[in-house]
Amino acid sequence: MTVPITLTRPPAVTYDITIDPLELPRYDRKVAVVTNPTVWGLHGAYLQARLDADQIEVIEVPDGEEYKTLETVVGVLDRLFEARFARSDLLIAFGGGVIGDMTGFAASLYQRGIDFVQIPTTLLSQVDASVGGKTGVNNRWGKNLIGAFHQPSAVHIDPHFLTTLPDREFAAGVAEVVKMAVMFDADFFTFLEQHDLREEAVIREMIRRSVTLKAEVVNQDEKEAGIRAVLNYGHTFGHVIENETGYAEYLHGEAVAMGMVMANALAVRLGVLTPDEADRIERLLARNGLPTRYTIADVEAFYDHFFLDKKSHGGRIRFILPDGAIGTHRIRDDIDRDLLLEVLGGFGDG
Amino acid sequence: MTVPITLTRPPAVTYDITIDPLELPRYDRKVAVVTNPTVWGLHGAYLQARLDADQIEVIEVPDGEEYKTLETVVGVLDRLFEARFARSDLLIAFGGGVIGDMTGFAASLYQRGIDFVQIPTTLLSQVDASVGGKTGVNNRWGKNLIGAFHQPSAVHIDPHFLTTLPDREFAAGVAEVVKMAVMFDADFFTFLEQHDLREEAVIREMIRRSVTLKAEVVNQDEKEAGIRAVLNYGHTFGHVIENETGYAEYLHGEAVAMGMVMANALAVRLGVLTPDEADRIERLLARNGLPTRYTIADVEAFYDHFFLDKKSHGGRIRFILPDGAIGTHRIRDDIDRDLLLEVLGGFGDG
Repeated sequence: MTVPITLTRPPAVTYDITIDPLELPRYDRKVAVVTNPTVWGLHGAYLQARLDADQIEVIEVPDGEEYKTLETVVGVLDRLFEARFARSDLLIAFGGGVIGDMTGFAASLYQRGIDFVQIPTTLLSQVDASVGGKTGVNNRWGKNLIGAFHQPSAVHIDPHFLTTLPDREFAAGVAEVVKMAVMFDADFFTFLEQHDLREEAVIREMIRRSVTLKAEVVNQDEKEAGIRAVLNYGHTFGHVIENETGYAEYLHGEAVAMGMVMANALAVRLGVLTPDEADRIERLLARNGLPTRYTIADVEAFYDHFFLDKKSHGGRIRFILPDGAIGTHRIRDDIDRDLLLEVLGGFGDG
Repeated sequence: MTVPITLTRPPAVTYDITIDPLELPRYDRKVAVVTNPTVWGLHGAYLQARLDADQIEVIEVPDGEEYKTLETVVGVLDRLFEARFARSDLLIAFGGGVIGDMTGFAASLYQRGIDFVQIPTTLLSQVDASVGGKTGVNNRWGKNLIGAFHQPSAVHIDPHFLTTLPDREFAAGVAEVVKMAVMFDADFFTFLEQHDLREEAVIREMIRRSVTLKAEVVNQDEKEAGIRAVLNYGHTFGHVIENETGYAEYLHGEAVAMGMVMANALAVRLGVLTPDEADRIERLLARNGLPTRYTIADVEAFYDHFFLDKKSHGGRIRFILPDGAIGTHRIRDDIDRDLLLEVLGGFGDG
């Protein structure tokens, strides 16, 4: 006999992203702020002046992608157990993407899930990591391979934190903003071309449009079955660049910037992007301090590296490209090897 | 400025529970069977004869609640990475509740979630763990404190596996069945009284009614905000018994059986259960080989132990009791200390 089980669920998860000088409600519960020494040193006092709760624990974890591990998350959980946090208490992620990913993951695990609030402090985490609910850690097999989908209950974006952000890291955030514009919104792309992206009013508008676009994408495809893959524009090439340079030479956003330029070269070769539009994208990236040209030492080796990516199953490489113009997108997995080697050859050192 | 984010979701999760001799579809993907040496030794060949997939990995973890840890789950994940499992592959939990909880947890974590199928081999896991989606592990602070909600894509219950189940473990499963009947279904309680629960047709019916009842409860309250707490009838007392006896003397179901008898004594004292009905429940438990009387060495110490339970927040102990008769329930957190000590005194050794 068969017993059909149906578990109904709330048909939507909702939360607000505020883009304003930080204002927090009074929390009638315990709050743990997960942060790192760098962020806490720069902005801890600023947060403390605005945070009021029944009890506040500050949990510092080491700064850096190399500490984005299950061990670090277990350390956070241990601190919560020691402080006797209940399922009804709250975590606050206070830092960049690494802090956000680990805090969200810890929140998903602690007693099978407690609330968390994001206060992202880098441009990249403000535009990218604050929408989507992807949490997780790296392990020796790769990045973000262990994790959970866990949505924050609120995201507070305060451009104030960007005043201390190094220029390179600001630029790395811009790369993801440009990615969103090229894939989804030609008007937004023009806006980025026409403005100084370091002006505060521009920053707020840039963040607003980025998170709105990303929310639309994620809403169509929370678990990355389809359109969410479009967010990987520039990443297929970028991951190989990161891999070849041992994740040491370039920030992720920098690798993505160079990856978008490569993707555009392929798009131009396929006739789905004009050379003029490819130039506009490259100029926008370069003007904002991003590297745009990666020199490929060995074209065949670069090609082989595509197959190390976890998203390249069944021997097909998936490319995300514009579909005729800036503001459009298409997923292509039908690019043949020779054509690809020809395009990669354009980036060779010969 | 505020950007409201709305993430829509499928309004329901559905899957089938089959209660029949095991029949599995052909899986066109990799499958990892997570099991322990005891179950695999007894029933591995039976499963292998019915399992066909692109590739089959058998992952054995040590048998026993003491191995229900994050370390064991990480070991399972490592095996999956080594065998290059993709997000589209499948885990099968083949064993009792410990195997089911850990396999479901591993499935929730692996690349942020892959499918898993449950083939529970104990009565307890068949009636209890196969519905609800609670997964997780223990740590030094307590049981199931780290975990996730992750629903199986199918549950296959084959009473064949019960033929090798020790009588004590069968009885421990019956305790949870009786719990469901007392809380939710007087007709079902009568059915249990009137039948030999070791007959195969009775077992199937008992499982069917238990999982149907539990699915109704979980459906109303997946994340345990309200009515799902009713499933803890007998557990408030039972947890203290397990705690006092170091989790070594009694199986969980045995502690719950004795806990229900204590809860009933409180219910009789409060006038929400007749002495006759309390006797019927105790007789049903005893007839099925369950202990019903725990002797309290120190009544005040027993009382104090209530406050160690993670569900006793704010100094209030939550009791789940019948609400006038078998088949009804009510959550009470207004029982005063003196009355409780009086009831506990009835179980003292003086």
